[in-house]
Order: sequence, then C-alpha cells, then structure tokens
Amino acid sequence: MRKLFVIGIGAGDPDQVTVQALKAMRQVDVFFLIGKGAEKQELTDVRAAILAEHVQQPHTIVEITDPPRDRTVPARHADAAYQGAVADWHEARAELLERAFAETDGVGGILVWGDPSLYDSTLRIVERVLERGNLRFDYDVIPGITSIQALAAAHRTVLHEIGEPLHITTGRRLRDEGLADGQSTLVMLDGECSFTQLPGDDVYIWWGAYLGMPDEVVIEGPLRVVENRITRRRAALREAKGWIMDIYLLRRSL
Amino acid sequence: MRKLFVIGIGAGDPDQVTVQALKAMRQVDVFFLIGKGAEKQELTDVRAAILAEHVQQPHTIVEITDPPRDRTVPARHADAAYQGAVADWHEARAELLERAFAETDGVGGILVWGDPSLYDSTLRIVERVLERGNLRFDYDVIPGITSIQALAAAHRTVLHEIGEPLHITTGRRLRDEGLADGQSTLVMLDGECSFTQLPGDDVYIWWGAYLGMPDEVVIEGPLRVVENRITRRRAALREAKGWIMDIYLLRRSL
Ligand SMILES: C[S@@+](CC[C@H](N)C(=O)[O-])C[C@H]1O[C@@H](n2cnc3c(N)ncnc32)[C@H](O)[C@@H]1O
Ligand SMILES: C[S@@+](CC[C@H](N)C(=O)[O-])C[C@H]1O[C@@H](n2cnc3c(N)ncnc32)[C@H](O)[C@@H]1O
Repeated sequence: MRKLFVIGIGAGDPDQVTVQALKAMRQVDVFFLIGKGAEKQELTDVRAAILAEHVQQPHTIVEITDPPRDRTVPARHADAAYQGAVADWHEARAELLERAFAETDGVGGILVWGDPSLYDSTLRIVERVLERGNLRFDYDVIPGITSIQALAAAHRTVLHEIGEPLHITTGRRLRDEGLADGQSTLVMLDGECSFTQLPGDDVYIWWGAYLGMPDEVVIEGPLRVVENRITRRRAALREAKGWIMDIYLLRRSL
Repeated sequence: MRKLFVIGIGAGDPDQVTVQALKAMRQVDVFFLIGKGAEKQELTDVRAAILAEHVQQPHTIVEITDPPRDRTVPARHADAAYQGAVADWHEARAELLERAFAETDGVGGILVWGDPSLYDSTLRIVERVLERGNLRFDYDVIPGITSIQALAAAHRTVLHEIGEPLHITTGRRLRDEGLADGQSTLVMLDGECSFTQLPGDDVYIWWGAYLGMPDEVVIEGPLRVVENRITRRRAALREAKGWIMDIYLLRRSL
C-alpha cells in the first residue's frame, strides 16, 4: 500500500518542527510542493532549511504548480458560486497531486505551513484524491505548531480569560459579525486590518507579523491607542518586503 | 539577569516536542515541576521520557507541590467567589515558585502540557511572581502542540468548514450555552460527556482520549449514533486506568 505523510512544520521558525515530523520526513522519498506559484520566497526557505538540516536520505521534490482559481467570484462563504469555485480549484489540485503521486512508488510527503487542521486545504485535497478512486494509499497527519501558538508565545500570553472561550475566525467574518462579548477572538487571514472597523474603547489587541521569522514584529495595547501604529507599521513592512502575514487576538476588557 | 523558560511539550506523544523546545531544555539547570500532587503517572512519564531522551546536561528537578485549592466554591466563571478562589490559588503557587526559583541561580525551566497559551495557569503564575516584585528575571515562552492539533491529526480532519470559525470552549459552557450554528465547536475540560445533553439529529462528533499516548482512542460519527458508544467506552477506560483526558469537535451538518 502506498503511503503519504501530511506534515505540519510550524508557522515560521524552522526550529518549531517536532521530532515526530522529523521522523516522518526521514521516511519520505518524494516531497510534493503544492506551491502558490508566486509563493513568498521566505516560506519556501523555511521548508528548505528544515529539509537541509534534518533530512539526509536521498529524496526528490516535485513542484505542483497551482491551477488558476476563479477569483472573479467574490469570497462569500454562504454563496454557492464561491463554494463552487473553491471546490473546482480543490478538484484541479487533486488531479495534479494524483498524477504526481502515481508517477512514483515511494513514500510521499507534503509539508504544510503551521498545522494541517487550520485554514489549510491540503487535507481536503488528499481526501479528494482518495474519493476519485484512481489511486489507493494510506496517509498519516503529523500535527504542527500553528501561528496561533506562535502569536501567544511571542506575547507570552494565554489566549483566553480563565475558563472562557476562544473564538478563531477570519478578517472577513470579523467585519461582517463584529466582536462578541464574553470570549477572546483570534483573527487570521485578514488582509485589511479589519480591527480598525470595530467600535468601542474597551478592546485590547495583541498583534504579530512574520512570527518566528527574522522580521517578526509584535505590538500590543488598547486597540484605539495602538491601531494606527499597527496599520502604519503593517503598510511599511508590506511595502518593503512585498508580502505580509499577520494574526491578532482581541478581547474586550471585563 | 535570571532566566526562565516556559516550554510547551505537546499533549501526550513525547515525539511531539519541538526542536526549539529541546534547545531551550538544554539550557535549563533547574526544572520546576508544578505538580498536581496526585498527578497521573502517565503525564509525569511523558515529561520524564522527553528529558531522558533529549537532555544530557546535569540538571535538578524541583517538585512544587500544589497548594490546596478551595473546591467548595462552585466553578462558575462569572462568580466573584470562584474568581477569588482561583486567584488565591494562583497566589499560593506563585509564592512557592518564587521561593524555589530564589534558591538557585541557574536557568529555570517549566515544562507545560500541550501549549502554555491554552487552559493552563503557568503563565499567570509566572506573571504573578514578577508582579510580587521580590525576584527579577526574564522569561521566554516556547510554543507546544496542543491537544486540539493532536485531535485533528488523529482524525485526519480540518477543524472547521472552509472560511468558517472555530469556537474553543469548555464542557461547562457547552452545557450552559448549547451549540451555536455556523461554526465548529471544540470542547475541552469536560468531565461529564456534555455532548449527550445537546438536542438535535444533525450534529457530528470527532472524539479522542489519551491522544498521542499508548492508550489513544478515537471515535467519530453522527452524535446520536455514537454517543452511547463514547460514554460507555469513556466510563470503561476511566474505570480501568483511574483517570481520563478527552476532547472533542462538534459540528452541525449544513
Ligand atoms: C492559510 S492560513 C494557514 C494557517 C496555518 N495552517 C497555521 O497553522 O497557522 C494563513 C494565515 O495564518 C496566519 N499566519 C501563518 N503564519 C504566520 C506567521 N508566521 N506570522 C503571522 N501570521 C501567520 C496569518 O493570519 C495568515 O493569513
Ligand atoms: C488543563 S487543559 C490543558 C490543555 C493543554 N495546555 C493543551 O495545550 O492541550 C486539559 C484538557 O486538555 C485536553 N487534553 C490534553 N491532553 C489531552 C490528550 N492527550 N488527549 C485528550 N485530551 C487532552 C482535555 O480536554 C483536558 O481536559
């Protein structure tokens, strides 16, 4: 039976990789790089650093260039057209992965940014390949440190008040739904500094960009006091580097 | 300046430890074990296995036995008496940690189950020691794999629907607040199989106990179909081993 490992590698610092991930990588013959084409060089560098430092056996790396995604459809989750566009894109990726995997008879590996269970499509694509039924294989998932843990560690903070919930959501949903009371809210995938649109003087923010990477920046404080500092800093960093990845935690004071 | 590392070690499998955690542990002279007194032997074993395999330098282990906590106060978060009981208990732990740390001039380390940012009191206690002002030190937090990542990996699943939120909460709150729509809900710290109290035929559950440990068990399925299997299995395991740690993900079908 063919074997595939889906391996979380942490969210920026190559040292965030686990011993379990290293043991899995050392069994892999072919790494599939499901790339974004124009993927940020730094993200590729983290993967390369991990492989160079920890993986000695002969292995090949097969790049699977992303099929184009229909970006004309607005990203509204409830919208059937959007769901359809995402499904088509997963299907196209699944076909490419199936083809690449069929061409080898060794153990396959896919390195996933952060953890595979959080805002990542790899597991859906792998399941899709199995559902297509052309290729039989077994696969294991190896957990990785998420950007959420990286944010909390950089700020040396707990993510929630004692015994209270943590809500993990996206920038779009924060804009649509606002900030709920009685819970802490962690926002990912926000290209638009959606925190600036929240009303109120009682919100605190813990923000971080490029966590675990050489350019890591963290800012925290009362939202109304630090929001301009964050948006200016974010714009300058993005301009200088050409890309940015950021994440933040919000909480209303009790 | 004194130095302390608060190090996440993963939620059960000693191989879940990260390279970054190992590098930190190798700098530690004194490990403080903030124990639960009657702590499950298996949890202690995971820590011992990590130290035995990866830490070679001479080091000491200082056990800090837990001060008694006032358990007569019911655990209601909104309740001032409960908040007060927890705060007193943190203060007593902080005093003990301060005393133990003051007795050495080496680098300190605290190994935390899972990740320090998630339902764990270590960071609050460390901050409390600093606030008391008797001891000055710098501290770093090293992220760890949480039991949430371990659950998702064991089930080979993503934690949420595409672009939708994930809500992390406790068994008590699930009982008080029910299951919200339009999000996936992850439940920790549930001693009472609170999922059995949820109404509805459209809920799916992914459950796991002793994740990453030799006795790992996972069960998934439509809640109404598998709930009895989970409660019976949980009771039997708990009876046989004397303790159990479990966690689960719930989601209404769309
Ligand atoms: C497609 S999601 C992937 C999340 C990943 N699977 C994880 O476990 O963190 C990408 C989002 O994760 C967050 N993110 C990932 N790595 C980050 C980093 N090093 N610094 C800041 N944010 C990061 C950002 O919010 C970004 O928009
Ligand atoms: C006090 S919290 C600590 C959580 C920890 N800091 C983490 O990051 O996972 C303990 C709860 O975590 C969950 N848990 C921790 N380890 C687990 C494991 N190996 N298997 C199942 N559940 C676990 C259970 O819900 C348990 O009640």
